[in-house]
Amino acid sequence: MQEYTVKFKPQNKVISVARGTDLLTAAIKSGIVLNASCGGEGLCGKCKVIINRKEVLACETIIEGDLDVIVPKESAQEHLILSHEAEEFTKGAGFERENAYPFSPLVRKIYLELSRPTPDDNSSDLERITDELAKKVEGLSLSIKLGNVKHLGEVLRDSDFKVTVTVGYKDDSVEILAIEPGNTSLSNYGLAFDIGTTTIAGQLVDLNKKNILGTRIAFNKQASYGADIITRIIYASEPKGLKVLNESVLENINEIVEDLCVSQNVQVGEVNGVSFAGNMTMMHLLLKIDPTNIRKAPYIPTAAFFPATSLSEVGVEANPKGLASILPGVTTYIGGDIVAGVLACGLADNDELSLLIDIGTNGEIVLGNSEWMMGTAASAGPAFEGSGLICGMKATAGAIQKVRIGKSLKITLDTIGGGKPKGICGSGYIDLLCEMLKSGIIGKNGKFDRDKKTDSLRKTAAGYEFVIASGAESDTGKDITIDEDDIENLKRSKGAIYSAIIALTNKVGKNISEVRKMYIAGGFGNYLNIENAIYIGLLPDTDRNVYQFVGNSSLAGARMSLFSHEAFKRAFEIHKKITYLDLSTEPNYMDEYVAALFFPHTDIRRFPSVQL
Amino acid sequence: MQEYTVKFKPQNKVISVARGTDLLTAAIKSGIVLNASCGGEGLCGKCKVIINRKEVLACETIIEGDLDVIVPKESAQEHLILSHEAEEFTKGAGFERENAYPFSPLVRKIYLELSRPTPDDNSSDLERITDELAKKVEGLSLSIKLGNVKHLGEVLRDSDFKVTVTVGYKDDSVEILAIEPGNTSLSNYGLAFDIGTTTIAGQLVDLNKKNILGTRIAFNKQASYGADIITRIIYASEPKGLKVLNESVLENINEIVEDLCVSQNVQVGEVNGVSFAGNMTMMHLLLKIDPTNIRKAPYIPTAAFFPATSLSEVGVEANPKGLASILPGVTTYIGGDIVAGVLACGLADNDELSLLIDIGTNGEIVLGNSEWMMGTAASAGPAFEGSGLICGMKATAGAIQKVRIGKSLKITLDTIGGGKPKGICGSGYIDLLCEMLKSGIIGKNGKFDRDKKTDSLRKTAAGYEFVIASGAESDTGKDITIDEDDIENLKRSKGAIYSAIIALTNKVGKNISEVRKMYIAGGFGNYLNIENAIYIGLLPDTDRNVYQFVGNSSLAGARMSLFSHEAFKRAFEIHKKITYLDLSTEPNYMDEYVAALFFPHTDIRRFPSVQL
Repeated sequence: MQEYTVKFKPQNKVISVARGTDLLTAAIKSGIVLNASCGGEGLCGKCKVIINRKEVLACETIIEGDLDVIVPKESAQEHLILSHEAEEFTKGAGFERENAYPFSPLVRKIYLELSRPTPDDNSSDLERITDELAKKVEGLSLSIKLGNVKHLGEVLRDSDFKVTVTVGYKDDSVEILAIEPGNTSLSNYGLAFDIGTTTIAGQLVDLNKKNILGTRIAFNKQASYGADIITRIIYASEPKGLKVLNESVLENINEIVEDLCVSQNVQVGEVNGVSFAGNMTMMHLLLKIDPTNIRKAPYIPTAAFFPATSLSEVGVEANPKGLASILPGVTTYIGGDIVAGVLACGLADNDELSLLIDIGTNGEIVLGNSEWMMGTAASAGPAFEGSGLICGMKATAGAIQKVRIGKSLKITLDTIGGGKPKGICGSGYIDLLCEMLKSGIIGKNGKFDRDKKTDSLRKTAAGYEFVIASGAESDTGKDITIDEDDIENLKRSKGAIYSAIIALTNKVGKNISEVRKMYIAGGFGNYLNIENAIYIGLLPDTDRNVYQFVGNSSLAGARMSLFSHEAFKRAFEIHKKITYLDLSTEPNYMDEYVAALFFPHTDIRRFPSVQL
Repeated sequence: MQEYTVKFKPQNKVISVARGTDLLTAAIKSGIVLNASCGGEGLCGKCKVIINRKEVLACETIIEGDLDVIVPKESAQEHLILSHEAEEFTKGAGFERENAYPFSPLVRKIYLELSRPTPDDNSSDLERITDELAKKVEGLSLSIKLGNVKHLGEVLRDSDFKVTVTVGYKDDSVEILAIEPGNTSLSNYGLAFDIGTTTIAGQLVDLNKKNILGTRIAFNKQASYGADIITRIIYASEPKGLKVLNESVLENINEIVEDLCVSQNVQVGEVNGVSFAGNMTMMHLLLKIDPTNIRKAPYIPTAAFFPATSLSEVGVEANPKGLASILPGVTTYIGGDIVAGVLACGLADNDELSLLIDIGTNGEIVLGNSEWMMGTAASAGPAFEGSGLICGMKATAGAIQKVRIGKSLKITLDTIGGGKPKGICGSGYIDLLCEMLKSGIIGKNGKFDRDKKTDSLRKTAAGYEFVIASGAESDTGKDITIDEDDIENLKRSKGAIYSAIIALTNKVGKNISEVRKMYIAGGFGNYLNIENAIYIGLLPDTDRNVYQFVGNSSLAGARMSLFSHEAFKRAFEIHKKITYLDLSTEPNYMDEYVAALFFPHTDIRRFPSVQL
């Protein structure tokens, strides 16, 4: 088979590929993740690269000879976001509830100075340890794997019976994960992960001090094989597909573990516990469980809860004997990320009626209190994650996160990181829609007022578009715009979420005004303008004091479970308690949805505070 | 390196070995286990083979060229004893208590016809199973390993949601070991093993019907590397020594599994649970745990209880996911075999004071009742196992198990299997000593009456010996004899056991007459003459009705634990309850021992019913 050399610039990556390979595949092979969202189907038109000064789609370009390929900034996804930014993104959520559960880490290191055996004190080495440990683990039953028994005699004698025992909490028992000579109890680290379809967030914590040491966010490398859950499940059904997707997410995870450890001067082998929260499909792919049935009616996951296991079995490159704990989910549409969110915001611990909305590709919503909970998921689409829109992007460096349009239609922007804008993220779109509505650039139906006197509104071959930043102002050198298709897309997303909130509230015979807490979670970075979200009809027009933006509540819940095995236990109770409402079988949901396809709504009485 | 061909006859095994190898090692390599008990040190003089019509010791003969080697009958150990004999040997023990615990096998197969998921019944595949199982496992918590979750979706759908779940009881929880399509619940088999230093007994049982299907006894192949525990521990400390010993016993176990399964038309893969009882060292070697510290003061085992694990992890060739459960021991000297014996004979369930004596290389003794138990071990030596005596052998086919000496000093014999005698086993020696005492062939001091008028008593270069069977009558063509060294050896053994019984009883302030049950266990085959054992001073002279011969109570206890997880739980309680008495630190034990070095005892008042 003939091989050709492809050189990707400016990354300067050179690889050999077989004749007939497409450029998207070649880019993936070289470690470059192009901003493709169609999984190589050529439909999204986003994997643009430049060959001989001509822009082509990487997925549709077949390699027939040696090539120099330029990857434009906007095509290449950044993999790892810098620490200080990531930390900002994960603030807010769960922090005020960080002490809601006792500090009792999921993995503990316990230093034991054991008495040396004598003829009168002749219990076995193992009993010497378990007898002493039993005093420290609150009466829970202790277990140990045979492998950890084998060299115990040597370990105890080499260390003069001074050892550090690493224990992990599993269900109602405590497992001895490792026994090491000497006192290593001062080093005990963990990582909490939120495994999202598009974004993966990992947080290194000190399990002794209850400190957050650092946070990283990366794009899910699985995105190269499908932008959304459905295309990934299809890919997983292909030969080796599951293996490839599993290895992709593990590569993400291990890069984050490595990067955080290096930056904090922590040995990866000192990472003894990792907790994972994510949607059902992500958890299946993480654990290499076939997700096929998730996309086939009646949409049943293989498992909604997952046994705790070793880090080595999952494939995390840390202490191989360390504990991997997975937050349980409810159904295909309510995953461990939502259970983690419920845990983090405290919905299940309050007597008051509360609501959690996680705005992502699906808008998951949980309503309830400490007595009962009901959850649902709206097919919102990934618009608020910046996906499927001309200039949409995730809430990462360079994303426009705030927009204001002045009286003279002057546009003021605020980007994440403060640099030149690269595109627009979810919170930016909410502001933009609101400001366009207020300034009359668009009407309630989402169409541009074509008579509006502004240079920013212009007609192209494809229709009208509104320019937010010109090529001169942007980081990419291209105009940053929004068109009517984008607005339609965003309108459907906000309509789906709003109508789901109403349908769920109605289902249990409650009114929105009875909801005393409304937690808004999602990948909006560290900012969401609630007032603007109400203005466009995404969130109900109710008392502003009930709203609280909680950011990445999935990560917060995963972290809380890592800091407290009682929190993890609570997550299990939550998983059992939430009942699922299937909107597709709800008689009035469709009507609600159609009525919500207006800014803010066809029934303006529902939004009394919105003046249009 | 030069290689030579060695041909072993009559087995017709031909192997190539390097120049300089000794013949014992070569024999082991060829799969022949020679009757050596010194572990290759050349001290026992038992590994006799014939080269060029000359008898030589295999361990001391170095291979310098091609060789034809004849292995005489008495040198080659028989590995597997036939089923019908083995079954006889294991009768008696535990049978009357077989129903003391409810029938609740350690491993169960449960057939589930699950409802197919629907939009309204959309719990995950795993929950569908655990919800249904929870109803059948008496409220115990359920666990499952990640590996068993991975293909669940496929298994359930391929079988139309009709599956068989194999569950194993572990501590206080139930683990899902396997999930198979269809109804395979009718085939559920298990094996109970007693792993002795010299003999391994295995029993195939039907876990559905509580039937014993067959029993096999084999010589422990580790014997080639050391006859007793100490030499094996030393061997285990050598490079690869532990591996070799572990593989040897696994070879025994797997041969028994295979042989029993073939004979009963059971697939080895249908063996889902195996329980093991054995002394501390045997359990360490079985589980490949370094036993080094067992022989170093203060003689501490690495573990006295062992976590249940999978058959594949132990190395048993059966259902790899099947459960391996190990009966817990107490200390180095009171192993899981004794705990199993206590379980089997019911000592821990009775209010009455009872005593269990297991006569083997160590004479282990447990005294107590349902309230308390104390155990000890006497260094009895392996005489009653037929080891270390001129014509001693295990209680296997051809062993003289009964002896009677008539008035005219005519000797009547009874061999195991009824064939020509090959040697004498423990129960044969007890009879023989008793009969020699009664007929005046030996005196109370164990010396021959040299004036006795009988052709059977003769003088050799080494001293006097008594001929029990001539070469013409024996299977080996050689005379079967006993000499004064043998008698001395047996006297020390019986003295050690008797004095331990007395020391233990005294320790708790009791008198032998207060013991209401006296269970005698050990490798005596299916026969032990209690009256004769009292006559020689091995057992105390008390009410004959308290005595009960229970045979292999270790195997019985292992079997009971396999048939009832509640019995297994009871074994755990027993392991915690027994306190250990160290005879070496008991002030009066030595005096007791010395006083017992007489037939029956120096203090004849202790044996009022013995008329000498």
